[in-house]
Amino acid sequence: MKSLNPEHHNFQSHLKKLSGLVEDRLSVCFSGLSVPAELYESMSYSLLAGGKRIRPVLFLSWAEMLGTEPDKILDFACGIEMIHTYSLVHDDLPAMDDDELRRGRPTNHKVFGEALAILAGDGLLTHAFHMMACTDLPAADVLAACAEISRAAGPAGMVGGQVVDIMATRSNKMDLDSLKKMHSMKTGALIRSSCVSGALLAKSRGAGKIDAANAVSFGESIGLAFQIVDDILDVIGDEKSLGKQVGSDESRDKATYPRFFGLEASKKLAQESVDRAKKSLAPYHGKEKNFLMDLSQYVVDRVC
Amino acid sequence: MKSLNPEHHNFQSHLKKLSGLVEDRLSVCFSGLSVPAELYESMSYSLLAGGKRIRPVLFLSWAEMLGTEPDKILDFACGIEMIHTYSLVHDDLPAMDDDELRRGRPTNHKVFGEALAILAGDGLLTHAFHMMACTDLPAADVLAACAEISRAAGPAGMVGGQVVDIMATRSNKMDLDSLKKMHSMKTGALIRSSCVSGALLAKSRGAGKIDAANAVSFGESIGLAFQIVDDILDVIGDEKSLGKQVGSDESRDKATYPRFFGLEASKKLAQESVDRAKKSLAPYHGKEKNFLMDLSQYVVDRVC
Repeated sequence: MKSLNPEHHNFQSHLKKLSGLVEDRLSVCFSGLSVPAELYESMSYSLLAGGKRIRPVLFLSWAEMLGTEPDKILDFACGIEMIHTYSLVHDDLPAMDDDELRRGRPTNHKVFGEALAILAGDGLLTHAFHMMACTDLPAADVLAACAEISRAAGPAGMVGGQVVDIMATRSNKMDLDSLKKMHSMKTGALIRSSCVSGALLAKSRGAGKIDAANAVSFGESIGLAFQIVDDILDVIGDEKSLGKQVGSDESRDKATYPRFFGLEASKKLAQESVDRAKKSLAPYHGKEKNFLMDLSQYVVDRVC
Repeated sequence: MKSLNPEHHNFQSHLKKLSGLVEDRLSVCFSGLSVPAELYESMSYSLLAGGKRIRPVLFLSWAEMLGTEPDKILDFACGIEMIHTYSLVHDDLPAMDDDELRRGRPTNHKVFGEALAILAGDGLLTHAFHMMACTDLPAADVLAACAEISRAAGPAGMVGGQVVDIMATRSNKMDLDSLKKMHSMKTGALIRSSCVSGALLAKSRGAGKIDAANAVSFGESIGLAFQIVDDILDVIGDEKSLGKQVGSDESRDKATYPRFFGLEASKKLAQESVDRAKKSLAPYHGKEKNFLMDLSQYVVDRVC
């Protein structure tokens, strides 16, 4: 009966609207550029493979709640999704996780070969910064948001997190502290900085340091919840709906939340983290705040 | 007797000063960041492996000629060198050129393995944009320079050029037009945009559209000369001084300028291109202009 709930209906339709805006812009993001056909195919294959677009939606929602319309910052949103996509393409490579399936389809290197997969990742990452830098808002705000995203995606963030992951998997030594650190760098940093850069791009509309700080604590909590849920889904998920081999993390002795805490306690931890995220929204009001509240719950509703 | 020529002495000492500034800043560019030790080692191994630092020096020289002191834009200069370094690390990978030596030492993946080499490249590329975005000059100028560099390094520039190179090498079909296109994307774009972004970061000092246009035509000519010289060095160079296997391009049937034109005509083409670069400097004067004139000649003096 959930679909008859008007709040729920509003959430679903706004989520569809925001992710649809991102999807549409992504489909034309290389137009006007003279890109070799093979590279264009390889980048588009992974970029337009569906996905929840959760990072750009979080980014757009924070900016919207603080007064910036999504239309004005779509290129920046696409840049964030490109960075996420590049990281998946490179993580799947034979030298890394050596995965064959992603979102129900063969991984990029399975279709285009390793060289093109590496270069597609490089192209997506570089073009991401181009799209972000071309955002038509006050330059100081755009630059601050670019600095925020590049820090989160870099050696002390996402890239570093993948190194921690690989090293721990190889040595089969990942304690709970390492797991938390790895998640916070590999997944948490970009999710957090998506929220923060949304707040930064609303600065000229009156958003201030307190808003950015609220976005940090919201983003950290939602990032943690997101990763715990991903760990849980790997255990209980359905191969068809996830599009990857279920249990693949466990079968390679990967450390996950369910492995340290069990399934039920992990679900509880995820919900607690979402509740903390919701608390960070206390200073705000209106339908944009309600959307972010529902979006937070949506992250764990996949399993809880 | 060249070293007794006072002009020559000034050139050498200023070249040493500028590349020394870049070198010093590069050696501390990850300080303050919490980077996993293995990643730090792998990035530093390639970043601090010497090299001519020609791109950041071109960048600094253009900015200096138009009134911006090198000290203020060193982080941006380091970002450009990081992008160059990441491209070498990824190009050397087994899935790409599969090279074992670079600058006289084993390539990154030979020392750290493929996974870390891919991630070191990703980390250098991402941190490059962080350093550029943190440049403390008027935000609109910094943003324009970031947009310029990211376009040149991206799918329609450097990354695309590597795809053209790989595809042509695999199919063994590279005509002169493809060779020119490949060089202009793979090597020329970043060299040109190094000059242009130097001009853009002098905008608040009075540099204008004409200066940026002069930097474009200078950068295109010097980029072409640089690549022709690299092709020539591959044929006549000395294994020890180059640090890579001489004839390695030819042995894999790679298209090069000497292969299409012969050695002497290639040298002539390189010098003609440098002469065109020098002509773009006609509107300028003073010792900064003289330095760029000498720097242009320096690019071909390695062989001509």
